[in-house]
Amino acid sequence: MRIVVLAGGIGGARFLRGLKRAAPDADITVIGNTGDDIHLFGLKVCPDLDTVMYTLGGGINEEQGWGREDETFRVKEELAAYGAGPEWFGLGDRDFATHIVRTQMLDAGYPLSAVTEALCDRWKPGVRLIPMTDDRVETHVAVAPADGDGERRVVHFQEYWVRLRAAVPAEAIVPVGAEQSKPAPGVLEAIAEADVILFPPSNPVVSIGTILAVPGIREAIADAGVPVVGLSPIVGDAPVRGMADKVLAAVGVESTAAAVAAHYGSGLLDGWLVDTVDADVVGRVEEAGIRCRAVPLMMTDVDATARMAREALALAEEVRGA
Amino acid sequence: MRIVVLAGGIGGARFLRGLKRAAPDADITVIGNTGDDIHLFGLKVCPDLDTVMYTLGGGINEEQGWGREDETFRVKEELAAYGAGPEWFGLGDRDFATHIVRTQMLDAGYPLSAVTEALCDRWKPGVRLIPMTDDRVETHVAVAPADGDGERRVVHFQEYWVRLRAAVPAEAIVPVGAEQSKPAPGVLEAIAEADVILFPPSNPVVSIGTILAVPGIREAIADAGVPVVGLSPIVGDAPVRGMADKVLAAVGVESTAAAVAAHYGSGLLDGWLVDTVDADVVGRVEEAGIRCRAVPLMMTDVDATARMAREALALAEEVRGA
Repeated sequence: MRIVVLAGGIGGARFLRGLKRAAPDADITVIGNTGDDIHLFGLKVCPDLDTVMYTLGGGINEEQGWGREDETFRVKEELAAYGAGPEWFGLGDRDFATHIVRTQMLDAGYPLSAVTEALCDRWKPGVRLIPMTDDRVETHVAVAPADGDGERRVVHFQEYWVRLRAAVPAEAIVPVGAEQSKPAPGVLEAIAEADVILFPPSNPVVSIGTILAVPGIREAIADAGVPVVGLSPIVGDAPVRGMADKVLAAVGVESTAAAVAAHYGSGLLDGWLVDTVDADVVGRVEEAGIRCRAVPLMMTDVDATARMAREALALAEEVRGA
Repeated sequence: MRIVVLAGGIGGARFLRGLKRAAPDADITVIGNTGDDIHLFGLKVCPDLDTVMYTLGGGINEEQGWGREDETFRVKEELAAYGAGPEWFGLGDRDFATHIVRTQMLDAGYPLSAVTEALCDRWKPGVRLIPMTDDRVETHVAVAPADGDGERRVVHFQEYWVRLRAAVPAEAIVPVGAEQSKPAPGVLEAIAEADVILFPPSNPVVSIGTILAVPGIREAIADAGVPVVGLSPIVGDAPVRGMADKVLAAVGVESTAAAVAAHYGSGLLDGWLVDTVDADVVGRVEEAGIRCRAVPLMMTDVDATARMAREALALAEEVRGA
């Protein structure tokens, strides 16, 4: 079975770990979000790709969900001693090596997809990880003026998310460069050859939404003619983790499992899993033309996550048989 | 008093620490060798500039003479896990930060001289440190064929020095790019305004020789009309430290205090200090038109080094009064 998964960072990576356990023989291709990518200290940092790679490759800091385990921060301390910032982004010493290798390969002319493949040679994530695009796409956030100073400010997504902790209202979210970007080699082919396409409980705006903003990807998924099943990142009207509600508000979508399903739409989504606490919305989602089931959606451990993945695959089979 | 010092790495840096103690009120400009510079992992590494900066700024690893004190090597270990080399060059985590900041500034368009000034803002070395040139000059070494395989190999100086430990005969040493290079801003001005010019006991070929290979620098020193005094890096026919004898052989110069003085020549050098064990060569050096004194030249500690610096300044005064 060939499964294509669109993945952001922590949520996507953890779901993938469960999916690998649920479908050990499947051929899994992950299309990774690169809208979170940022240049720091002259180095190209790809937080979502790395989170997937480290999580599936056994190098992740389990507790925080991103970055390397057993990490130290000596390079960063020294950079701060030079007055080189930003200090709000946590780059550890082991993590730095990844960005150094990546930047060196990019500077040598390799596209990000080839670089990602080379990095995965070490991590052996057990999936094929492809960035959504080799072109530069950067998610920017327009934040409300602070203290009524009248100036709307546009910041990089990481500044909004990490430095400002999404505590300032986001008025618009723009994947800058997406319109001119092309899917990375292999992305459209993987979608066309997929038996199932899954949207993990990732951020529907700045993770999966950004991937879908690369021209051709949304269309390829809609036209693939195979079941497309998603898992709600919203449980009981709040994000399971992260701050998805903040960015949903910016695009005018309510922070509910039903509203996110409607945001993807029946043109894209065939099946939708909501948590058991949201069982009351199943009927409403199905009325909108999306097959819906309520199952436990808390990724408390790999077993629980594998059960979620099995439910998603079962729903896909149901869609296929319908 | 304005003193200009041409400096390589460890020897130059340690001499400068003594000079600062010997002449605390002097205005010292250091023209640093950049022929040892190397690109590693996409980063610009300037070993000699950093050794001067760390030594005078209090950040040096005293025991080894280069690199940072209290150093760790996590980034390098991770790079090796990616298969990214070379492994023979010892870049520590704290040191990496310097190269990251430098590379970022160079990529932003700042010349190396401006970058060095910015790095020194942190280290406050108490001297003005200027790279010999902002242009790329790289010392390459032609090494003899290994095991008679007939191929003469040209390697970067660092590969010859660090990886091969100068154990292979060097047949030629070429500061690639030197002919097309220009002295960095401030270099010729500092020489023209100097009261004294000193050559520390640095490597006469790959440190001071490389600086003198930048068109205009040798001429400016010869024309400055002020005392130029050097200290022999060779004591008792062997280098005090390092492997200067190997590179002297490559340029056809004997590894003796007298031969190095003759290599610089009386057109450049007015005074020359040799160690007391080499007192027998004083007459020969003086016959060649270079004023010479035999004094203890072992930089065993800062006090001993300060005494050497005082001797050099005294010899300069003698030259001036002559």
